[in-house]
Amino acid sequence: MSRHSLKHHLYVIIFGTHTPAGRAFDLGLIIAIIASLIVLVLDSIPALNEQWAEVFMYLEFGFTGLFTIEYLLRLYCSPKPKAYAGSFYGVIDLLAILPTYLALFFPTAAYISVIRMLRVMRIFRILKLVRYLQDSNILLRSLLMAKRKILIFFSTVGILVIILGSIIYVIEGPKHGFTSIPQSIYWAIVTITTVGYGDLVPQTSIGKAIASITMLLGYSILAVPTGIITAELNQEMNSHKSLVKCPNCSKSGHESDAMHCKYCGSELADPDKRITTPE
Amino acid sequence: MSRHSLKHHLYVIIFGTHTPAGRAFDLGLIIAIIASLIVLVLDSIPALNEQWAEVFMYLEFGFTGLFTIEYLLRLYCSPKPKAYAGSFYGVIDLLAILPTYLALFFPTAAYISVIRMLRVMRIFRILKLVRYLQDSNILLRSLLMAKRKILIFFSTVGILVIILGSIIYVIEGPKHGFTSIPQSIYWAIVTITTVGYGDLVPQTSIGKAIASITMLLGYSILAVPTGIITAELNQEMNSHKSLVKCPNCSKSGHESDAMHCKYCGSELADPDKRITTPE
Amino acid sequence: MSRHSLKHHLYVIIFGTHTPAGRAFDLGLIIAIIASLIVLVLDSIPALNEQWAEVFMYLEFGFTGLFTIEYLLRLYCSPKPKAYAGSFYGVIDLLAILPTYLALFFPTAAYISVIRMLRVMRIFRILKLVRYLQDSNILLRSLLMAKRKILIFFSTVGILVIILGSIIYVIEGPKHGFTSIPQSIYWAIVTITTVGYGDLVPQTSIGKAIASITMLLGYSILAVPTGIITAELNQEMNSHKSLVKCPNCSKSGHESDAMHCKYCGSELADPDKRITTPE
Amino acid sequence: MSRHSLKHHLYVIIFGTHTPAGRAFDLGLIIAIIASLIVLVLDSIPALNEQWAEVFMYLEFGFTGLFTIEYLLRLYCSPKPKAYAGSFYGVIDLLAILPTYLALFFPTAAYISVIRMLRVMRIFRILKLVRYLQDSNILLRSLLMAKRKILIFFSTVGILVIILGSIIYVIEGPKHGFTSIPQSIYWAIVTITTVGYGDLVPQTSIGKAIASITMLLGYSILAVPTGIITAELNQEMNSHKSLVKCPNCSKSGHESDAMHCKYCGSELADPDKRITTPE
Repeated sequence: MSRHSLKHHLYVIIFGTHTPAGRAFDLGLIIAIIASLIVLVLDSIPALNEQWAEVFMYLEFGFTGLFTIEYLLRLYCSPKPKAYAGSFYGVIDLLAILPTYLALFFPTAAYISVIRMLRVMRIFRILKLVRYLQDSNILLRSLLMAKRKILIFFSTVGILVIILGSIIYVIEGPKHGFTSIPQSIYWAIVTITTVGYGDLVPQTSIGKAIASITMLLGYSILAVPTGIITAELNQEMNSHKSLVKCPNCSKSGHESDAMHCKYCGSELADPDKRITTPE
Repeated sequence: MSRHSLKHHLYVIIFGTHTPAGRAFDLGLIIAIIASLIVLVLDSIPALNEQWAEVFMYLEFGFTGLFTIEYLLRLYCSPKPKAYAGSFYGVIDLLAILPTYLALFFPTAAYISVIRMLRVMRIFRILKLVRYLQDSNILLRSLLMAKRKILIFFSTVGILVIILGSIIYVIEGPKHGFTSIPQSIYWAIVTITTVGYGDLVPQTSIGKAIASITMLLGYSILAVPTGIITAELNQEMNSHKSLVKCPNCSKSGHESDAMHCKYCGSELADPDKRITTPE
Repeated sequence: MSRHSLKHHLYVIIFGTHTPAGRAFDLGLIIAIIASLIVLVLDSIPALNEQWAEVFMYLEFGFTGLFTIEYLLRLYCSPKPKAYAGSFYGVIDLLAILPTYLALFFPTAAYISVIRMLRVMRIFRILKLVRYLQDSNILLRSLLMAKRKILIFFSTVGILVIILGSIIYVIEGPKHGFTSIPQSIYWAIVTITTVGYGDLVPQTSIGKAIASITMLLGYSILAVPTGIITAELNQEMNSHKSLVKCPNCSKSGHESDAMHCKYCGSELADPDKRITTPE
Repeated sequence: MSRHSLKHHLYVIIFGTHTPAGRAFDLGLIIAIIASLIVLVLDSIPALNEQWAEVFMYLEFGFTGLFTIEYLLRLYCSPKPKAYAGSFYGVIDLLAILPTYLALFFPTAAYISVIRMLRVMRIFRILKLVRYLQDSNILLRSLLMAKRKILIFFSTVGILVIILGSIIYVIEGPKHGFTSIPQSIYWAIVTITTVGYGDLVPQTSIGKAIASITMLLGYSILAVPTGIITAELNQEMNSHKSLVKCPNCSKSGHESDAMHCKYCGSELADPDKRITTPE
């Protein structure tokens, strides 16, 4: 096998998803990623870490070795290695292996090794190539359509939270735990999102009244992003009727799988050839 | 009465719901199930258990006896006893009686007897046969239609929770209660779902900033499943497509105002006369 | 003025809302109700109660006197006094005055006097007669239309809560505060509704896993009632197109204020006379 | 340059947004506002305040000086200075500078200086003039359309909270922390909005049952405002009604597929050629 054809063959397996070998590679990779995540998670539990630290370390070296080979192969077979290395997933792939090597030289920087948890994002790459693509796109498109409205909503929440936090800071003050404005804004976020940890609660009557207003505000403005996304999704899901006009009666609004005009029965253009851009 | 006709007669009463006897049996069964659940619940309250333990035990034996007879009768009169025993409700029926018998031999395994609370699921079987069937179906169909979108949503929440949990684990660390990654993921779930127990709260400024982002994320992505289900329900409730089949090509699914088959162009029955029950 | 006409005159003022006198009476009544509620609320604050107990008592006697006179007048001028006394608002009116009289004879039963807070419901009677009637009806009609779906939703939540409560009771047990099944069901409700007081939290790893599932369930099924009500409201608000057919081209779907067919321009029936029942 | 033309020139820069100078002024102002907010926030953190109090004070004086000049220029160049001074943003502009001057004379009133945080609202003025105007308007219009329904919703929540608070006050009483009716209403708000701080929790069985009902209520009525706003947004986004006026009767508001005026029956302009910008 020539060097070029080997490179192309590897490319189809590693980056592609349409051949059986490509699919087997993806499946193996997902299993390795999930297994390495489980090792990382178990390693963080003190009781297990004490007993099995060494086993976990060897497993981690094994996974890092595998991912390093995979990374080098990706660099080797990619037609544009630099573009890959600089892409979003290229960086994630590097971040998934680097910390283990760094930990060899700077053992105290062990915490930085949690960056390896970013491996979880590598699952996305594989998933996004497969079946759930279309539904995922409808969701994404709705969110993008609603982008501006969502931004306005978040600006409003942001300004509300700054004002409410400042007010509660004045009313409750440091002696009730509201030691600074950022701390009070944190309280306002905890309250307006209805999380309500309870680590910081108003103690005065006026403070409780302000808190009540904050809660009711948070409770009701939650309706706004929901309304936005629902309305966009509705629009997105309704926009599936073709723009094709009946050649006989000129009426449009036919379903995308219709072959005859529903009003006069004339034959319509071939469904596969006609333009079905959403209205 | 012949043996066969007795079997059939029993089948109509126990499995059927259309005869007065069948309905009376269902009603009696619901009352017995609810009564046995109340006994189980009361028995778990220490103050009552001390005084009435014996009474509760005898009542429980009574109910178990009743349900055992019912189970045996179901096995006897069912046309396919094995299929029934292996079905979802067959297993639930068995789990509803088994723990009491097991508790006789292994008295220490008393906790396992809480499995009996699964009896609550037997109520479903009876309810699903009756009036609320259609509305329940619309809800279920909407959820099934949205299955993929919901899966994408949960995967996204899952990955967010893993990443946010890992970040907070590094920032807060074991000295603030974030003792391991699973513990930190638990915190991320408590926060992103806006439950906010407050048993685990960030103490550092950066930790509070991460927590604020988690809350705002959880607060706003809640809009996504709501949008999905609302849009599907809207579609479902609007889809009053006729069940009329085309007399020529036998395909159904025509819109309610269609006068010609959208597939072959043949004339359909008069819209005002045809049956338009929803699919 | 004859006795009959006095009775009728009083009826128009007290029960009616269309005359200036009737409106003035309603306004006065609302002010008296709100004032009496404020007195009740202030009286419950220990610091104020100590100092002003006597003043509050005299004010309360004054309000009770007023409401007693109003109740007697309502009985007197109502055409069917018995029907009024037995109606929902008749009972509320009686409950609003009775506790004060009872407190005279049974001073220890002071807590029962909180029943007087039910006076707040008397505001509803007056409000429902006025301007916001139509919008309130759209909301109510949507809720009624969705009645069955909401019932199914609550049954599902109820059964989920019983099962999850029983599971957590077995896993966490009395030593972590889950002292009984009802207590554990209370925890499940606190968690599934995303309230999360934090007075009862799982301590074991498995308990935390169950809690996470409960939270995610609660977080996502919240979408269901929202979807139901939104879809119903959408239907309700869209159902405003008249069923009138154009006498010329026989097409329907005209807006309720249309006077000419939007397709052929022929004159339609008079908007005020045509039937505009929602589709 | 004449005095009048200077005034007009300043007006275009300060109040306008369409010239490059106007845009540069707006950008500079936003930066100054945000910088002054950051100084205020940092100044409130005890650790920083100790070390840098003097620096923060001088910075604050600088910003106040800038904003004072801006305020005076606005007064000078506005065609109607009194109308500006009395307008919403005129008052905000004044409140943004006044506290610093007051703090010079009454040093103990330092807390009042938090009013300066209202500067955050000045960002709104600039934002509302720019790009996100249209989407913001759709949101606002939907909220205004739903105004009455939202009012009904809040009245219902208010009355529910008063009744549930009174009930829990009677059941739990002062010995479990429910010291007064306002305190108990505060608990009811914390619970019905699903915030759940946990600073005040029911201890008795009946109290927990009432709390469970409150939670389930709050959990499900949240669906109502969401439904309202979604339905209104749907309507708003669907209302792509043409702005075409009937050539005969001059009325607009025709549906996009109408060929004849629905009011007088005159023929409208060709649907494909007319402008259909949303209202």
